[in-house]
Amino acid sequence: MSGIMYLGKQIIADLYHCDEELLDDLEYVRKTVVEAAEKAETRIIDCKFHKFTPQGVSGVVVIAESHIAIHTWPEYGYAAIDIFTCGNRSMPRLALKHVSRALKAKRVMYKELRRGVLENVQVNENKILNIRPF
Amino acid sequence: MSGIMYLGKQIIADLYHCDEELLDDLEYVRKTVVEAAEKAETRIIDCKFHKFTPQGVSGVVVIAESHIAIHTWPEYGYAAIDIFTCGNRSMPRLALKHVSRALKAKRVMYKELRRGVLENVQVNENKILNIRPF
Repeated sequence: MSGIMYLGKQIIADLYHCDEELLDDLEYVRKTVVEAAEKAETRIIDCKFHKFTPQGVSGVVVIAESHIAIHTWPEYGYAAIDIFTCGNRSMPRLALKHVSRALKAKRVMYKELRRGVLENVQVNENKILNIRPF
Repeated sequence: MSGIMYLGKQIIADLYHCDEELLDDLEYVRKTVVEAAEKAETRIIDCKFHKFTPQGVSGVVVIAESHIAIHTWPEYGYAAIDIFTCGNRSMPRLALKHVSRALKAKRVMYKELRRGVLENVQVNENKILNIRPF
């Protein structure tokens, strides 16, 4: 087997110059992130969203493949998005694309990280074939 | 004002060679992460934990300062932790230390990211002084 094996991948994205009103709309943010999870073909287990006073929304969607989290700062037109998935079936970049468009971000900066690199753990072929949660 | 201003900071940590039984114990993982949030002096808003079949736990704690998330792969002795905080009052490294010890990780690799760098947004001094959620 060649290449680096890893358990999860994570998109860390900073969305700048978003629509400030949308960033502060709890229901809109919730709907957007849930849609993003669906577009990425992840399976939603549960979600928690919270509206701050005087402004800002935080939300986390627990998915079978790990999680999607968002935090918004309407006063800066900024949102932070994390999309953590495992397995090969989900498409986290589609989730990022959906959220970026929905929040009307004019500048998106993101990086992709590999989580749980298997050269750091005891590995055998059977275990590699059994990566949760296919 | 000097230095780079940013809205949030995030510790991304990979915990290798943890105790496999503890990683699969939903209540233990939940207790550990909630304690970690407390040690970091964050304010817990809500949390969601989920046990997978045949193994593994995912959990997210929504805090006033953003979130803490954990995903465990007992079959690899591995856990992924993210600790995302904003403001200057919380101490996310203490949270990482607590979780690493509680799960008996023998190898911890982590990085710290800055989220929402303000050179990318319109900034004025009043806004900088008003960073949520002090």
